[in-house]
Amino acid sequence: MQIGMMGLGRMGANMVRRLLRGGHACVVYDINPANVEALVREGATGASSIEDLVSKLSKPATVWLMLPAAITGENVERVAGQMVPGDIIIDGGNSFYHDDVDRAEALSSREINYLDVGTSGGVWGLERGYCLMIGGPDHAVAHLDPIFATLSPGGTGRTDEDREALRTADRGYLHCGPSGSGHFVKMVHNGIEYGMMAAYAEGMNLLKAANAGKQSRTADAETSPLQQPKYYQFDLDLAAIAEVWRHGSVVSSWLLDLTAEALRHDPTLADFGGRVSDSGEGRWTVKAAIDTGVPVPVLSSALYQRFTSQGESEFADKLLSAMRFAFGGHHEKPKS
Amino acid sequence: MQIGMMGLGRMGANMVRRLLRGGHACVVYDINPANVEALVREGATGASSIEDLVSKLSKPATVWLMLPAAITGENVERVAGQMVPGDIIIDGGNSFYHDDVDRAEALSSREINYLDVGTSGGVWGLERGYCLMIGGPDHAVAHLDPIFATLSPGGTGRTDEDREALRTADRGYLHCGPSGSGHFVKMVHNGIEYGMMAAYAEGMNLLKAANAGKQSRTADAETSPLQQPKYYQFDLDLAAIAEVWRHGSVVSSWLLDLTAEALRHDPTLADFGGRVSDSGEGRWTVKAAIDTGVPVPVLSSALYQRFTSQGESEFADKLLSAMRFAFGGHHEKPKS
Amino acid sequence: MQIGMMGLGRMGANMVRRLLRGGHACVVYDINPANVEALVREGATGASSIEDLVSKLSKPATVWLMLPAAITGENVERVAGQMVPGDIIIDGGNSFYHDDVDRAEALSSREINYLDVGTSGGVWGLERGYCLMIGGPDHAVAHLDPIFATLSPGGTGRTDEDREALRTADRGYLHCGPSGSGHFVKMVHNGIEYGMMAAYAEGMNLLKAANAGKQSRTADAETSPLQQPKYYQFDLDLAAIAEVWRHGSVVSSWLLDLTAEALRHDPTLADFGGRVSDSGEGRWTVKAAIDTGVPVPVLSSALYQRFTSQGESEFADKLLSAMRFAFGGHHEKPKS
Amino acid sequence: MQIGMMGLGRMGANMVRRLLRGGHACVVYDINPANVEALVREGATGASSIEDLVSKLSKPATVWLMLPAAITGENVERVAGQMVPGDIIIDGGNSFYHDDVDRAEALSSREINYLDVGTSGGVWGLERGYCLMIGGPDHAVAHLDPIFATLSPGGTGRTDEDREALRTADRGYLHCGPSGSGHFVKMVHNGIEYGMMAAYAEGMNLLKAANAGKQSRTADAETSPLQQPKYYQFDLDLAAIAEVWRHGSVVSSWLLDLTAEALRHDPTLADFGGRVSDSGEGRWTVKAAIDTGVPVPVLSSALYQRFTSQGESEFADKLLSAMRFAFGGHHEKPKS
Repeated sequence: MQIGMMGLGRMGANMVRRLLRGGHACVVYDINPANVEALVREGATGASSIEDLVSKLSKPATVWLMLPAAITGENVERVAGQMVPGDIIIDGGNSFYHDDVDRAEALSSREINYLDVGTSGGVWGLERGYCLMIGGPDHAVAHLDPIFATLSPGGTGRTDEDREALRTADRGYLHCGPSGSGHFVKMVHNGIEYGMMAAYAEGMNLLKAANAGKQSRTADAETSPLQQPKYYQFDLDLAAIAEVWRHGSVVSSWLLDLTAEALRHDPTLADFGGRVSDSGEGRWTVKAAIDTGVPVPVLSSALYQRFTSQGESEFADKLLSAMRFAFGGHHEKPKS
Repeated sequence: MQIGMMGLGRMGANMVRRLLRGGHACVVYDINPANVEALVREGATGASSIEDLVSKLSKPATVWLMLPAAITGENVERVAGQMVPGDIIIDGGNSFYHDDVDRAEALSSREINYLDVGTSGGVWGLERGYCLMIGGPDHAVAHLDPIFATLSPGGTGRTDEDREALRTADRGYLHCGPSGSGHFVKMVHNGIEYGMMAAYAEGMNLLKAANAGKQSRTADAETSPLQQPKYYQFDLDLAAIAEVWRHGSVVSSWLLDLTAEALRHDPTLADFGGRVSDSGEGRWTVKAAIDTGVPVPVLSSALYQRFTSQGESEFADKLLSAMRFAFGGHHEKPKS
Repeated sequence: MQIGMMGLGRMGANMVRRLLRGGHACVVYDINPANVEALVREGATGASSIEDLVSKLSKPATVWLMLPAAITGENVERVAGQMVPGDIIIDGGNSFYHDDVDRAEALSSREINYLDVGTSGGVWGLERGYCLMIGGPDHAVAHLDPIFATLSPGGTGRTDEDREALRTADRGYLHCGPSGSGHFVKMVHNGIEYGMMAAYAEGMNLLKAANAGKQSRTADAETSPLQQPKYYQFDLDLAAIAEVWRHGSVVSSWLLDLTAEALRHDPTLADFGGRVSDSGEGRWTVKAAIDTGVPVPVLSSALYQRFTSQGESEFADKLLSAMRFAFGGHHEKPKS
Repeated sequence: MQIGMMGLGRMGANMVRRLLRGGHACVVYDINPANVEALVREGATGASSIEDLVSKLSKPATVWLMLPAAITGENVERVAGQMVPGDIIIDGGNSFYHDDVDRAEALSSREINYLDVGTSGGVWGLERGYCLMIGGPDHAVAHLDPIFATLSPGGTGRTDEDREALRTADRGYLHCGPSGSGHFVKMVHNGIEYGMMAAYAEGMNLLKAANAGKQSRTADAETSPLQQPKYYQFDLDLAAIAEVWRHGSVVSSWLLDLTAEALRHDPTLADFGGRVSDSGEGRWTVKAAIDTGVPVPVLSSALYQRFTSQGESEFADKLLSAMRFAFGGHHEKPKS
């Protein structure tokens, strides 16, 4: 079927490619004409403006936006301004699900369908397919089933599932519920991702410290001594350990596959500075948990580790040093 | 090749089966004769005592112990008592790695080789193969390579690896280092497992709470109100969400596979009481991290959640209630 | 000076008493006439409605609201409806500071002054005085200085402070900044309170467990054994320990004073069920920290402990049990 | 009464001064003769060696050691070598309580009494008195009551307590139980101290961030935007807030007194680097909690924050960056 795509960054462009390969017709638009031209060479129809994009789509028109969250709102408005009742807007970016709830409500009065689609798969989606978490009205979601089926990995295609939800989930896409639910599920997905990543990172950091007993340690009052150095004499091969865990262990996962590859490439990870960004979903997850009174100590710990890596604990640390000086006269060592 | 196996519980018995299928000769012993007989019917040679077990093995004799940690120490001693220099003892259970370091040191003076093998794979190992993390002297580990190769999943068998460690890791087994390192790596593996499990559990718990806005909530001073109920109106299908994440998402893993299966079977998980045991490795992981000064907030949070599920926060909670009563006159609601 | 007080619960009534003792004139109103009558007998002027309350106040009229957060908003509106430009409304309850920012903005167009006053001191405030954290416009705060000075503890009254803020802070009240800042500071105060309470509760819980080595423990595979029981043989007197720490130790505090008193009364705390409520400030604190990227692992842990005590981890715990069963065949023990 | 003191650092020297002021006779020894001479000038009797120290004490001799934990063990042995049955050794330093249990057991066969005394009070103890947590045999503790009474703050001296433990606790010292219990209680005390310090530090860090909405923030995909800047416009006076909380609020404490003083001196805390040391007790507390299955999320979080401030999360952070690059192509910003 036919679909319009707006926002041709890496994610958007690759999704167009996967749709073209699946036999769909794509009209594409981006603020940067070079991005449009590249996809036109691969078989897409180019558009030069939002007006042009919508006018080239047969009715009901569907426009999928793949934009940074910060500019999604205004562009939804601009696209909607070109639409007629029955048309469909999809936000496939990383929007905050509250915005979806509000936008869907506003657009429904104009009979424009708004869908929010959480999209996981990153730079690997073109080949592996994208895992799609979809929120929005039933009929619009059903109408776009061929698009979702092509974008998703395809899965095992089990036909014996007793429930429709499980049938599509088994292929990699799911209509989660009304507007906002797609991004809600994606948000929690990312929260879990933070926790899993931190679990591996903490474990690998401990494996790396398994030779602590070999190092001479300062023996002053400000350094806690290692009590039994004989038990910390292991020089472990982190790349090989990540690799072996991929085969038959309880902690095997796609994130572990990536970890093994990264450590194999360079076990010192010297290319990476360790200032870990967060793009919002982890924050929203914890805030939603607090709203609903759900304890999420692991997901929060993972989030705070990122804040700290960004330097945000500095003043707190200084205050701890100040207190230690005040009650004990402890002069802290300089920060290395 | 030939090997003796002592301890024929589910893990030990299935490992014998996998070895028999791989063409190895197994002499088996268990305190329960019925367990011995069952494997004799499947092709193993039975033994009636530790003495009998060791005497039926050609030299150098190898005995693999698959016993609860609490009784492993004394049985290592009893087996070693029947051995001569050059023989090999393997502890494949969940022993504390300090004990391995100490045992290996004690046995080395008698020229008996001691190996510690962390074994992951649980009830699925018979079919999937076991992920093996091995500690001990080089020559003994090399001698037993055919055994490890059969027990492990087999992997992709990439032959282009530049390092021996990666070559076997790619098949699912790894010689991690000297005695104790196998169980050390297995210990950290289980610590990570705790963290991953908790990440999924917290996320799923939050998904379940996505309809909190539909519930009427008490509006007294002791209950924090939900500020924006309109954003918590989703009745989510947890089984379908776990399923869809298995296909192309960043959080796909073997634990997620199991989670999806469990939720599909019963999304209310009514069979489970929620008192979550811990068998030691998680505790040892955190203690090792503290010894070496490695921050492990995620792994610790996961461990404490289990302690709390076992009722261990009760007195702390009562003290919080007592303080609230003392400064604010708050009468807590009864525990439901 | 003269002030109106609306909401004569324990907090509001005691504040009126402290003001009357300080020589101020109080006009009081409550939805429950008995509460009004009680204070009239102690020297206050009674009012029978909001209209009556405002009409009995000379200009500029000041009304202090001491109401549950859930009904504060509507009552601010009703009081404002009786007011004229220059009058002052004070919200002394536990409102969310966003509401203060919004209310102040709305009322400023009608030239009504809105102050938010975070009030700490609980049931002890009548005797000890209340710690007041004040947000709002300068002139209105300055106008009410005699009221704040009477309500606050009075402090040491150091006159050598170089800054006005420190001068009043030293007496127990502080103009923190524009509208909302009073409740913001009170919110963080309560977040810290959660963390301190949890620190004591966790420590006391550990002291209580110091005799764990004396207890016989189940030795099954689902229970992690105590490795060195000889080091856990202490039967500690918690009430005496809390008491001794009050004298010269680094952890002495008012919360410790209350803890010592509670443990002295009953070291088993049998009167308390351990379902610990939270009234909102702790949640808002963590959400504000997440908004601003500030790591708050301690404050969050304390909050989640309360959620868990309220039963909110149940589904997560069940999922952990379900996973353990799926990969290891572990049957958890029943919840006691 | 008479007592010997070995180890005349700041803590040991000040304790001698407090004992001299209280009318006790002190024989003092330190490896640095200048430290001995200084106290001789203030009325103590000097000793030139351990032999000399013990020989100058009448029987039963009591020697109080105030040494770094790392050298306490060997010096206990050397002192004990000069003693006869009935003599008393006190370790007043920050020893690991397991060592106390072991030492007391070893010395008891020689009929030498060993006491462990956890001492809190820091550089303020000379004036305020020391809070003493005492472990050891009853008769030796009773014999030294005059010493403990002089060192401790003295308290309120309530005479109506129904229990002996509360009577001395009310003066600032407590016989907690058998050997090891004094340092066990002191260990937990310090664990709580870590948690309280972190609660204040996190809260103050959040107060400092209350003006986040005034700062322009990068609007790229790697930076999570502040959603509602209008609610983060407060420039708060941290020194004044710490001061006001000291007066009548729930979070008042001695640590808050010190915090207020430090912030008043310099609200930017520019003298402090923020590399926060830990001297062992926090680690031991968490390990004891894990041994006994007691959840201590707050105390652990506080400990890990210190590890992280020491740079120990670096490799974990790099691994997070490496994973983010692997699945999403995210290039992290350089660490500032």
